[in-house]
Amino acid sequence: MSKPVILVVNDDGYEAKGLTAMVEIARSFGKVVVVTPDQPRSGVGHSITFMQPLRLHLYKEEDGVQYWRTNGTPVDCVKLGQKVIFKDRPIDLVLSGINHGSNSSVSVIYSGTMGAAIEASFENKAIGLSLLDYSKDADFTAAIHYGKKIVAEVLKRGLPPFTSLNVNIPKGSIDDIKGIRIARQTNGIWHEELVENTDPFGSKYYWLTGYLEVLDKNEDCCENLLKNHYISVQPVQYDMTAYRYMNDLKFLEDVR
Amino acid sequence: MSKPVILVVNDDGYEAKGLTAMVEIARSFGKVVVVTPDQPRSGVGHSITFMQPLRLHLYKEEDGVQYWRTNGTPVDCVKLGQKVIFKDRPIDLVLSGINHGSNSSVSVIYSGTMGAAIEASFENKAIGLSLLDYSKDADFTAAIHYGKKIVAEVLKRGLPPFTSLNVNIPKGSIDDIKGIRIARQTNGIWHEELVENTDPFGSKYYWLTGYLEVLDKNEDCCENLLKNHYISVQPVQYDMTAYRYMNDLKFLEDVR
Repeated sequence: MSKPVILVVNDDGYEAKGLTAMVEIARSFGKVVVVTPDQPRSGVGHSITFMQPLRLHLYKEEDGVQYWRTNGTPVDCVKLGQKVIFKDRPIDLVLSGINHGSNSSVSVIYSGTMGAAIEASFENKAIGLSLLDYSKDADFTAAIHYGKKIVAEVLKRGLPPFTSLNVNIPKGSIDDIKGIRIARQTNGIWHEELVENTDPFGSKYYWLTGYLEVLDKNEDCCENLLKNHYISVQPVQYDMTAYRYMNDLKFLEDVR
Repeated sequence: MSKPVILVVNDDGYEAKGLTAMVEIARSFGKVVVVTPDQPRSGVGHSITFMQPLRLHLYKEEDGVQYWRTNGTPVDCVKLGQKVIFKDRPIDLVLSGINHGSNSSVSVIYSGTMGAAIEASFENKAIGLSLLDYSKDADFTAAIHYGKKIVAEVLKRGLPPFTSLNVNIPKGSIDDIKGIRIARQTNGIWHEELVENTDPFGSKYYWLTGYLEVLDKNEDCCENLLKNHYISVQPVQYDMTAYRYMNDLKFLEDVR
């Protein structure tokens, strides 16, 4: 059997330490091609670029790995990988990350890392990996260790159709981690603050920040698993319908 | 009772005809404040801006309506409206759109219009409105007519918690529309093409385009309702967990 072909993308850009960690995971399994944004693009969710042209530039080949970068978003990276670089050739797996910082709870809809993984899942097996450490110099040792194990299982057993994995890894050593648990998305929302300041020219600006409020007591939700030192693996799909409320809204069908 | 306070946002920018149409809907109910991106930001999904500062500029007051614009995304427009303009004052309803073009099926995750509506639903009642006509000069007559009726009902009866409405309106006259139906998201995916071309300086670029493949036969899915000349109203929530596959993935819990 020939070695699997793995596309690696991220949202932290081509200089992120988490990208090097993901390439280390991917290289232990097969042929690797990397496509990343040419600047950090955190928080761009499922953003795509179609009102301006996309550029794609092969800037490095190292240890058999091709490194491409683009002016596009993480989702664009996936599309460029699938439709341009691997046009008419199969991809076996798409890996997104490793993100510097968690993508738990509602963060999955803001996350460029998970935007890319969800997009990839429409054509390929896809996994997003995030480490609960925002620092540039985060220690990815445990993330690489468990990332390899999860990738091995997914390559062997596959994934359900149109379903990606949102893998969040707690901070700490390999031994600090108690194991892996399948998780549902934590019910929680971000409370934003827009910090007001004045630029050197006297004009006001606002800088977005905030904190996550967890509204969930369930033990199998991602936030509570992470708090208890488990790796959280959320299977992610793209149907956002609020099924439970469809009947409650039937009154709108009487409007004429 | 005092008049309701309505925040209007969009993703097509401050010059879009659909914005004028949405303001017409909103003004018939209450006090209106508009916050839009300073350029068209279609397809940016749930993108937020936190790696650079946000600007917010009141550029017009007309017929009692304030018009603000920002360098941010549609989701940023919601946050700036909620946290800066209406800081410590209640908003009764957030309206996003009217979008030039549909936001049916999987487009809900790419849509800036629906990104803003979903974000707004974390604090407010929120509705995204889209007309199935991409042209700049689209006729919004029927969209305004039915938009007013839906807004009236939502102001009267409320919406379930953390739930926005994704309203898609078929092209055509008021009489062409058969009615309103509560819809579930159509199972479908975009097939992309990246059209290759060369710029005047000899460098290659790619332009993203594609078509939606509908994989859904259900009569109550948004695409099929729209095809049958119904207005589709999809209740939207933010939990993306693939619940149906959680058990199938339990094998990952044995990985050590």
